Amino acid sequence: MTAEQPQMHLNAFLIGLGHHQAAWRLPESDPEALVDLDHWIRQARIAEAGKLDSIFLADGLWMGWAARHQPGPALDPLDVLFSLVPVTERIGLIATLSTTYSEPYHVARRLASLDHLSRGRAAWNCVTSHSDAEAANFGMERHVGQLDRYGRAEEFSAVLDALWDSWEDGALVGDKVSGVYADTDRIHEIRHAGETFRVRGPLSTPRSPQGRPVMYQAGSSDTGMNFAARFAEAVFTAQPTLEGGRRFYADMKERIAARGRDAAAVKILPGLSPIIGSTEAEAKALEQQLNELTPTGAILTFLSQILQIPLTEEQLDGPLPELSDDIRWESRAKLIVDMAHSENLTVREVGQRTAFARGHLVVVGTPEQVADEMENWFRQGAADGFNVMPPVLPSGLETFVEQVVPILQARGLFRTEYEGATLRDHLGLPRPAVRTSEAAGAAAG
Amino acid sequence: MTAEQPQMHLNAFLIGLGHHQAAWRLPESDPEALVDLDHWIRQARIAEAGKLDSIFLADGLWMGWAARHQPGPALDPLDVLFSLVPVTERIGLIATLSTTYSEPYHVARRLASLDHLSRGRAAWNCVTSHSDAEAANFGMERHVGQLDRYGRAEEFSAVLDALWDSWEDGALVGDKVSGVYADTDRIHEIRHAGETFRVRGPLSTPRSPQGRPVMYQAGSSDTGMNFAARFAEAVFTAQPTLEGGRRFYADMKERIAARGRDAAAVKILPGLSPIIGSTEAEAKALEQQLNELTPTGAILTFLSQILQIPLTEEQLDGPLPELSDDIRWESRAKLIVDMAHSENLTVREVGQRTAFARGHLVVVGTPEQVADEMENWFRQGAADGFNVMPPVLPSGLETFVEQVVPILQARGLFRTEYEGATLRDHLGLPRPAVRTSEAAGAAAG
Repeated sequence: MTAEQPQMHLNAFLIGLGHHQAAWRLPESDPEALVDLDHWIRQARIAEAGKLDSIFLADGLWMGWAARHQPGPALDPLDVLFSLVPVTERIGLIATLSTTYSEPYHVARRLASLDHLSRGRAAWNCVTSHSDAEAANFGMERHVGQLDRYGRAEEFSAVLDALWDSWEDGALVGDKVSGVYADTDRIHEIRHAGETFRVRGPLSTPRSPQGRPVMYQAGSSDTGMNFAARFAEAVFTAQPTLEGGRRFYADMKERIAARGRDAAAVKILPGLSPIIGSTEAEAKALEQQLNELTPTGAILTFLSQILQIPLTEEQLDGPLPELSDDIRWESRAKLIVDMAHSENLTVREVGQRTAFARGHLVVVGTPEQVADEMENWFRQGAADGFNVMPPVLPSGLETFVEQVVPILQARGLFRTEYEGATLRDHLGLPRPAVRTSEAAGAAAG
Repeated sequence: MTAEQPQMHLNAFLIGLGHHQAAWRLPESDPEALVDLDHWIRQARIAEAGKLDSIFLADGLWMGWAARHQPGPALDPLDVLFSLVPVTERIGLIATLSTTYSEPYHVARRLASLDHLSRGRAAWNCVTSHSDAEAANFGMERHVGQLDRYGRAEEFSAVLDALWDSWEDGALVGDKVSGVYADTDRIHEIRHAGETFRVRGPLSTPRSPQGRPVMYQAGSSDTGMNFAARFAEAVFTAQPTLEGGRRFYADMKERIAARGRDAAAVKILPGLSPIIGSTEAEAKALEQQLNELTPTGAILTFLSQILQIPLTEEQLDGPLPELSDDIRWESRAKLIVDMAHSENLTVREVGQRTAFARGHLVVVGTPEQVADEMENWFRQGAADGFNVMPPVLPSGLETFVEQVVPILQARGLFRTEYEGATLRDHLGLPRPAVRTSEAAGAAAG
């Protein structure tokens, strides 16, 4: 419990009315709250009161699976975060952004805007999207393949970095005497011309407080892990078991180090869904209540979509059917199938378990038990911290912050006050220096 | 001064540190304020204290003309508005969005998000963009022609309307007993397949408080006016003279009526740059101070860009050179050339006048004189209200709200309290009903 003890990093993953698909059916929940700003403000303030590193919003660019039975991602996540800027002070703000369906100039400018307005709290979770349903909202018949997606994501990320560096620090001089507002000799076109993008730059935005917003990534396939190893500054992952978590952690850190990067600096944050009660029995009762409130249709829709097979009511209490090898295999689907096979679960069982946590670690117990499990993962080399996914929002986050965080703090595992002002400060990441491309010239005045 | 007297509509056009390009050089100005949230919050609160209908942010998707000499549009305007949602209550929020460089699904979702989070205060100013510099940030060599741009804008706008109507009102049922969250029989794919866009829909967002966010438009060319006549619910325009303003007003209303729409419902709001002093001499002194602080380079850069001709220091005190006919003629450039010719202005003079107000009406005088001019335009059929463009921000807006607005209120020309909650309420626009396309089927559950 010395000051040098390594510290956990905690992120609150906010989604709809909670991560459990039945959360909205609890008496405490307001089904319309997900489009109500007060709902989001409440959550952000709870997370900040708990001194968490950050809050994170996922995304989906289509009317989500199971809209009939549960809330989907109704609002633009980055927009929600902008609305939270004036009502928060320190907490980091992480928005999911799709490199497949966005233009890098827009994304670079929006994230730089968030970093300015929040005074250095901006981050993005880089996703490549993965459904035909999203493609159909952007003029395409089918989703692009995984390799093409990651190729585009790499180029996208390189363009963002170049745009964020297109203004050198201090290029906004604002010299009232000489009348020079911006020193255009220190603002550079990027002249990017690659496989997918042509972007001249510079960005219209001065370099932001963090230099570059922090980049999170969550790819768990081989391609995704290599991408993260090259670019990510923090990694989200779904790991339902300690053993799997340790394996992923070691593998990921090794890949990062192999690229000559500082592996310790890149924090690995497995998802954690804590179902908390004042006794273990109470926690289990909440879990059972939520599982019983889960509409059968929600389970079938979720599994059918993620496994890409049709499933019917009749199959609910039988085993998971064999899957054809020619589906476009996502790492998350594989994880679910492996779990079903290794534990001999029925469709209903695997559905109840995964439609909730979607392959993430679930801990059902007292605050002490949750903290124990977190400390165990942290000390066993499976996690640098956690992406906390409360089953019900905001109440599950409130319980976590009020009852689990103080235990972690008492054990010296988590900060009791923010020490810095920016998200990079919270994560112990240095502010990156400008990398000016040799090809880039000074911008035309 | 009866209750039935027609009422003006007032919008505050917020930009950088003010509409005058020398605003940032005044002792009161902080050159870095344009990336500081407090600067924007202050302006929004002043505008709301004045009971204005709305605030409006322009945009440019490149590092603007004259960045060396004055602030450009550094932040994403829609993002800034999201940051202002929790610190305002009633005022409408209008963001400029380019139909040329955006995807309709993103824009529809972002504006619906703003409408939800602000409880019915969202609007967009539909622009088609107009520079090669913007094109170069989005993979294109040159900007697309005017006709193509408006064709795309029409289709874009139709896709937005269809997406906003893809959820019928009340489709979010949230029935906890039956477990039906959204009634997917009342949520429809839009299956749009047009010249430019293919969008399946539905939007992931329930129908928003205003049904559809309000649409503003500012095209003043023949094509632009026809576009506005078909789609716009309010019109911004640059009219430096009363005569020209009356002509535009009559022409625009006629075009709207010719399309079978209610011309009275579509408010026409010319830009107005008020330079206010407690005496006329004081106002003129402020104008002169600002003009003297305008860097020569800013004038040359502005005129060179908008007129698409190179201009040098040597030409400053001579007449505007003749312009070739083969430039891609924008209505704003034409207006500037006409002004220069009809008043025999030098390059410096036309530059000082237009680089500030960019072709908009400028009134230099006491609060009474400004109110007189506004009332005159309003009564003479040249305006339904004004797009107020303070030369210096926030001080010019503060002066306008504290000194001009009370005069308009005393004359019964402007509200003393908000009467409704939404921007449509402020504008007297009805909430549009859902138009469900016959082609649209129920969304897959």
